[in-house]
Amino acid sequence: MRYAAGIEYDGSGFLGWQRLAEGPTVQAAVEKALSFVVDHPLEVVCAGRTDSGVHASCQVVHFDTEAERTPYALRQGGNSRLPAGVSLLWCQPVAPDFHARYAARARRYRYTVLNRRVRPAMQRDYLTWERHPLDADAMHAAAQALVGEHDFSAFRTVHCQAKHARRNVHEISVRRQGEQVVIEVQANAFLHHMVRNFVGSLLLVGRGEQPGAWIAGLLAGRDRTVAGPTAPSNGLVFLGPRYPHRWGLPAELGIDGD
Amino acid sequence: MRYAAGIEYDGSGFLGWQRLAEGPTVQAAVEKALSFVVDHPLEVVCAGRTDSGVHASCQVVHFDTEAERTPYALRQGGNSRLPAGVSLLWCQPVAPDFHARYAARARRYRYTVLNRRVRPAMQRDYLTWERHPLDADAMHAAAQALVGEHDFSAFRTVHCQAKHARRNVHEISVRRQGEQVVIEVQANAFLHHMVRNFVGSLLLVGRGEQPGAWIAGLLAGRDRTVAGPTAPSNGLVFLGPRYPHRWGLPAELGIDGD
Repeated sequence: MRYAAGIEYDGSGFLGWQRLAEGPTVQAAVEKALSFVVDHPLEVVCAGRTDSGVHASCQVVHFDTEAERTPYALRQGGNSRLPAGVSLLWCQPVAPDFHARYAARARRYRYTVLNRRVRPAMQRDYLTWERHPLDADAMHAAAQALVGEHDFSAFRTVHCQAKHARRNVHEISVRRQGEQVVIEVQANAFLHHMVRNFVGSLLLVGRGEQPGAWIAGLLAGRDRTVAGPTAPSNGLVFLGPRYPHRWGLPAELGIDGD
Repeated sequence: MRYAAGIEYDGSGFLGWQRLAEGPTVQAAVEKALSFVVDHPLEVVCAGRTDSGVHASCQVVHFDTEAERTPYALRQGGNSRLPAGVSLLWCQPVAPDFHARYAARARRYRYTVLNRRVRPAMQRDYLTWERHPLDADAMHAAAQALVGEHDFSAFRTVHCQAKHARRNVHEISVRRQGEQVVIEVQANAFLHHMVRNFVGSLLLVGRGEQPGAWIAGLLAGRDRTVAGPTAPSNGLVFLGPRYPHRWGLPAELGIDGD
């Protein structure tokens, strides 16, 4: 039987999602907890890997087990074995051909910048601090050049293992909420560091160090070495993937199409 | 010269505000940092002490120094010496008779409950978890019995050192925001554990275990032993004091009157 599960995690205490030989990772914590519950070794496949320090409000995974456990028992048992920074939000059976990564038609991320004179004390694991006043409207306008299907080579890290750099950005918004500037991006998929590289370059526009048209120029130039720095992992949250409705996952993860 | 300063802190790593012989406290951290900057031992007096684990978005203190430092240097120098969980938001000279505690005419607190089936992973230091569905409207209606000047003996801890239990609650609101239930209270002053005891009893109303009128009855009975449990410190934020405008503090801290 194949199951899908939604997972919230605080990336602060982990070396990212992907299991490593050493050090705490979210994948290892989830696999250890669920393996205990089903009483056999188990692997989970996620919708999108996240880096060290990056949070997720709804990562999605799938896994297989023949153990006779209700979805409720899997969720509750898993949560009782997971560390405090990881929580199973839901768990449900899915069709055997569901794949958390390949079935996803979109992913959403949110990046939050605290824009004030002094550094954050509260919430500091969830914020990146920018002391120079940001023009969020200018950032929003400049960011619209990123929407659509493009070669995003200018915004991928040299460590990115993707075969090609073409991705389709469905939407990107930058808006001010009091002292915070919040960037949200949805794309069919993301290259490694793509959101943080978007943000790093948009911050230069927001500070007035680059004109808005610079973003479009970076995209067209496809040269990573001239874009802005990679923004810190603090502040980035994977809001989760989106799947066609036919898979029957929670409604808030649904997207039209196949 | 007397100065006032606004301080944000994350209570998670501290044994509360008040300086103790042993263990990290916010007061000790602030005094150590500012004493270094002015180059002499210095004490700070706060608007309202907070317990272990309780956060503050704008605690206010006053302190005295004859050192020739600009307010900017005090703030920046202080922040460079403070641990990551404490941040000086602003610092300014004030009249010599300003007193952070006695001049305050009101204090505001916010308490945030995450109301869903599974425990929080992200933001868990800033949330209290309640798995049973809460009726926020019923909690709000019941809470209105607390507004006004009353003897709040039913909601003070046995350790409370205040001379009497009369306080004036200016307003209290309970509202749902998605998965969160947010309680905000303003009073002229608070007894020890008063907000957390309000919340502990209101949660019983929200879960349907007590009728709304129970809150009014508790207040009238003045008996701490029959009220609800003290809600956890996670979830409580001291939003800050309010001072008459004549003191010239930041506008958001102003309140009409003398």
